[in-house]
Amino acid sequence: MPDANAIQEGFKDVQNDICSFLNEHNSKSYQEDCWKYEKGNGGGITRVWADGDLIEKGGVNFSAIRGTSLPQSAATKFKIPEGTEFLATGVSLVIHPWSPFVPTIHMNIRYFEAGDVAWFGGGIDLTPCYPVKDQIINFHETLKDVCDRSGHDYAKDKATCDDYFYLPHRDETRGVGGIFFDHLQGDLDTHFDYAKNLGYAFKDLYRPFIESNRDQEYTEDQRNFLLYRRGRYVEFNLVYDRGTIFGLQSKGRIESILMSLPATAHWAYDYRPEPGTPEHTLTDFYLKPQDWVNMD
Amino acid sequence: MPDANAIQEGFKDVQNDICSFLNEHNSKSYQEDCWKYEKGNGGGITRVWADGDLIEKGGVNFSAIRGTSLPQSAATKFKIPEGTEFLATGVSLVIHPWSPFVPTIHMNIRYFEAGDVAWFGGGIDLTPCYPVKDQIINFHETLKDVCDRSGHDYAKDKATCDDYFYLPHRDETRGVGGIFFDHLQGDLDTHFDYAKNLGYAFKDLYRPFIESNRDQEYTEDQRNFLLYRRGRYVEFNLVYDRGTIFGLQSKGRIESILMSLPATAHWAYDYRPEPGTPEHTLTDFYLKPQDWVNMD
Repeated sequence: MPDANAIQEGFKDVQNDICSFLNEHNSKSYQEDCWKYEKGNGGGITRVWADGDLIEKGGVNFSAIRGTSLPQSAATKFKIPEGTEFLATGVSLVIHPWSPFVPTIHMNIRYFEAGDVAWFGGGIDLTPCYPVKDQIINFHETLKDVCDRSGHDYAKDKATCDDYFYLPHRDETRGVGGIFFDHLQGDLDTHFDYAKNLGYAFKDLYRPFIESNRDQEYTEDQRNFLLYRRGRYVEFNLVYDRGTIFGLQSKGRIESILMSLPATAHWAYDYRPEPGTPEHTLTDFYLKPQDWVNMD
Repeated sequence: MPDANAIQEGFKDVQNDICSFLNEHNSKSYQEDCWKYEKGNGGGITRVWADGDLIEKGGVNFSAIRGTSLPQSAATKFKIPEGTEFLATGVSLVIHPWSPFVPTIHMNIRYFEAGDVAWFGGGIDLTPCYPVKDQIINFHETLKDVCDRSGHDYAKDKATCDDYFYLPHRDETRGVGGIFFDHLQGDLDTHFDYAKNLGYAFKDLYRPFIESNRDQEYTEDQRNFLLYRRGRYVEFNLVYDRGTIFGLQSKGRIESILMSLPATAHWAYDYRPEPGTPEHTLTDFYLKPQDWVNMD
């Protein structure tokens, strides 16, 4: 069974791996802030990109915090008594590129200890604005490989992702999904491997979108549609996302918690794209759960 | 005691009064949508401004809906058993002007019946970006007059407003406050008058900001600061606002509920204005509760 220290170190390595990859593809390097958790012990390393040619706003955050009362949002499957000491460590990232053709991506791997209970969680999901079907299928196939290699069930974790990244008030998913898992107990070594495998797969999962799409020219209307879609991202993160709610409830470092928000979001009253347009196809097809790996 | 019909008609008159006033000051008239409440009976009249020379995005919404189960967010003071039939009617508005010198304003008056219980609620609050002290004092003095005329305690409702429009994760108020009241039972005639008095005072409350500030030129940096501050408005509305949460929980008309969101909001990682600048003074002085009517 991995000890907490090994898990933290393993997660830091994942953060480094992903940050090097993103630096290679962005004209500017990240800005790093190391911080302490004011309400308990521990802290984190926040790395953000605020400009550069690829990334409009994004960040990769590592944290390992210890506190005296785990917020309920951290565990929805088991009841953790109030006042239970906890350790929460993880890596989370959100990248919002400038281009409407390079999807926003989110990934998170995490480990909790609360009293006698310990578990892993994590996931990755993709939010494209102008999706290309083959690329989405390829993304899901790569994820299926990660699951297969780690002895985890892709179909199950894919379905959990579709359920989780869903905006009931809009009746649409946040994006084209990915995988999501939580409360993984029992064989913690295997689950740690799963989390790490996902972390190290990030490069292969995201590279195709960067390399194939970043140089495609876009119109002002397409960029505006991206900003409009980012409003939905904000809605999801502030209303439903358990990670954000956990951060707010645990009185974490607010700039690291809200790092996930885009640089700019638009809202327009009752905007409805014309049927037949790519903007309409996005909500009509891509933002409903699809069986990507069994698609012709 | 006023009957529900008289209250609805009274609220519609308030909506009309405010909409005429706003139309006079904006180069374009509102767009109107009448809608039905899909999950029960009733519906509403949503009027929105999407452009024009004063208003960047705003709306004044009237609704009167009946349903079979009042969401808990509607009543925090008394316990309404699940499955209690309810009537909820009210007027709510949010106006986001283009200019950083004309404050965003929000107002809401509402009436609920749930089983045997009936109560009024409401409030108004102002969110300036570059506040002018005398104007803020004048705004609060006008509100004190409304309270005095209606036999209500300004100091109490002002304090409730400061408590309510507060973002704990930012440790700042949403704006410079106003008044806020809820669960007003007992002498419903008086409370109805209070709600109407507030509604009809909107013109006098908002006119000075429009007339004195709308033509003042602003820089691109000042406009960007406004967009940044609008991020906080989004954070408050999506994370804390009971009206928004009530709307989402009661599965109301989403475009009317989220009408309160600005057209554009910016987020910047760890942005901190320089001490001594107006941007710093905003959070350092204006976004902390102040005793506006007793200020020298």
